[in-house]
Amino acid sequence: MTDPIRVLGISGSLRKASWNTLLLRAAQKLAPEGMTIEITEIRDIPFYDGDVEAGPGIPEPAVALREKIRAADALLIASPEYNGSVTGVLKNAIDWASRPPHQPLDGKPIAVFGTSPGATGTIRGQAHLRQVLANVNGLVLVQPVVAVGNAAQRLDADANITDEATRNFVVTMLTRLADWTHRLKA
Amino acid sequence: MTDPIRVLGISGSLRKASWNTLLLRAAQKLAPEGMTIEITEIRDIPFYDGDVEAGPGIPEPAVALREKIRAADALLIASPEYNGSVTGVLKNAIDWASRPPHQPLDGKPIAVFGTSPGATGTIRGQAHLRQVLANVNGLVLVQPVVAVGNAAQRLDADANITDEATRNFVVTMLTRLADWTHRLKA
Amino acid sequence: MTDPIRVLGISGSLRKASWNTLLLRAAQKLAPEGMTIEITEIRDIPFYDGDVEAGPGIPEPAVALREKIRAADALLIASPEYNGSVTGVLKNAIDWASRPPHQPLDGKPIAVFGTSPGATGTIRGQAHLRQVLANVNGLVLVQPVVAVGNAAQRLDADANITDEATRNFVVTMLTRLADWTHRLKA
Amino acid sequence: MTDPIRVLGISGSLRKASWNTLLLRAAQKLAPEGMTIEITEIRDIPFYDGDVEAGPGIPEPAVALREKIRAADALLIASPEYNGSVTGVLKNAIDWASRPPHQPLDGKPIAVFGTSPGATGTIRGQAHLRQVLANVNGLVLVQPVVAVGNAAQRLDADANITDEATRNFVVTMLTRLADWTHRLKA
Repeated sequence: MTDPIRVLGISGSLRKASWNTLLLRAAQKLAPEGMTIEITEIRDIPFYDGDVEAGPGIPEPAVALREKIRAADALLIASPEYNGSVTGVLKNAIDWASRPPHQPLDGKPIAVFGTSPGATGTIRGQAHLRQVLANVNGLVLVQPVVAVGNAAQRLDADANITDEATRNFVVTMLTRLADWTHRLKA
Repeated sequence: MTDPIRVLGISGSLRKASWNTLLLRAAQKLAPEGMTIEITEIRDIPFYDGDVEAGPGIPEPAVALREKIRAADALLIASPEYNGSVTGVLKNAIDWASRPPHQPLDGKPIAVFGTSPGATGTIRGQAHLRQVLANVNGLVLVQPVVAVGNAAQRLDADANITDEATRNFVVTMLTRLADWTHRLKA
Repeated sequence: MTDPIRVLGISGSLRKASWNTLLLRAAQKLAPEGMTIEITEIRDIPFYDGDVEAGPGIPEPAVALREKIRAADALLIASPEYNGSVTGVLKNAIDWASRPPHQPLDGKPIAVFGTSPGATGTIRGQAHLRQVLANVNGLVLVQPVVAVGNAAQRLDADANITDEATRNFVVTMLTRLADWTHRLKA
Repeated sequence: MTDPIRVLGISGSLRKASWNTLLLRAAQKLAPEGMTIEITEIRDIPFYDGDVEAGPGIPEPAVALREKIRAADALLIASPEYNGSVTGVLKNAIDWASRPPHQPLDGKPIAVFGTSPGATGTIRGQAHLRQVLANVNGLVLVQPVVAVGNAAQRLDADANITDEATRNFVVTMLTRLADWTHRLKA
């Protein structure tokens, strides 16, 4: 028997009915035995500003995110693709999280996935995100790459994945994230 | 004789003494005959949120940026590198700028450059930025890639480039941006 | 009336029935008025080796490619995606082409496209290719990005695009390549 | 006490006096206690051709590479940067290695490093290589990124790293590769 894995879920979109937030909530419901997924918000984190950091210090909402990341065994990031890359709000949250001392992304197991209305399913945005997370020594699950195209055909408004192949793909990702987290803890 | 080229300058950093803002101001002073560079701010543009866009509409600071981009003949973006990519604040500004209708980056001549305290000079961040701008049909000047490493040895606090090779490199970039803008207008 | 545009076509695949070679041949047949597309081979170019270059010199098949590139007004590259990037044979051909003196890719208008059996249509491979070509100051047509997924549903064995939307997309790309080439020549 | 780690070393350059081959040989001499590094050649592997694979089958030199990869506990790849990406000969070797069945890169611990005569030290080429290896589920050591600029100042012709900081950096990478390999085996 192994310890339960507490996963922190982050969506890169602020829109209430965001496909990526829906996908994240769908994953939450599909978490395998022994894994719990808590979803957090990044909306209130102000833009990174080195003067703020050097003066008043890391803002409270960014501190809160850092502590949640530190407390989690792993992260699960649902990343929309805006103009072939990650969203500003997500990049900004990662940048605050990455600041010294004791940046909490260092060595953290992470799974990245995403969905888009079009066919390519955030595959380019995920590529940028993976490079960013590698830069802070985030240990991103390498495979599978879950890039869900044609979101409207695969997700309903209650955060259910209606397409069986996609659902199995997400379950596989979560199961591998559990295994990845256990291996890296060992 | 050709029309003067009005360039809009944007720095991806919010820090007052930012090396990249200094570099942008240095470029401003080095603008060749027939080119003027106006520098604008992106600090007040809120995070992109599809609900805001669909409801109250594009926020005023983003509208203002869009109009400045539209009015400019070309853009000059000084991009810091945060975690191997662009800053959240810059990505966010581009995402608002890229929204329909009549997104103003479409077909716009753009030069990208940057500087960093370390050796690699934002080269990875510029690569992400170029991919993002290509996504909105920004016509980024391909060469030269101006990635100024060891900023503290090459810039002073009054926005002067103290290193002759770097200064010549920036002048070359600006001259080619002028030529690029004229060719694309033709 | 403008001069005709002579385009050199290159496929990154060696397989006889390659989807990308088929796509390139389909494009050849769809060339707009005033554009001709000649297809060349890169199979016989040996691996780049600096000792060969410094000794006997650039091998004959690479010299031949360089001369064809130099003589062309523009390039059209059909790039398969192998493991998220370009093929070795294509990268190798570009590397020989990029060597001094007078490297022929400098300032050359280029269009890149591709197709794959799966859904994402070489979009990641094209991203790498665009970065490589930018490195040698290739002036790659920025938009549209033609990444044809599900090749078997859109191409037949006689190099016809059987899907109208895809065919229109390719025609648009070729028309814009013609315009791009004329603008850059001006 | 742990099992010794057998590392297979691959250089992406064919040039006899290649800086990257020198760097790889220097790393070989710096292997920590419990690690051995064997260097192999990729020069004789022909270009990937799906017709060859489907007909006579994977060519003997590619089969030999696949078996060496399979037998190794980890890989160490010294990658030059040609035009901002990996070399054709290295990409080609990886593509043959990635073919089914039982592709040997799947789950393999890998460290990537490189050196260049200029300042940026192959950092862009490594980025492409990491993306390619992730595509075949290679488990690339995330940090440190060892990109040795100004090769001529840091390596001698006998494959010694003459600069202490660089030498320590390489030793750190190898030590972490050993740890990474042990963790992933567990």
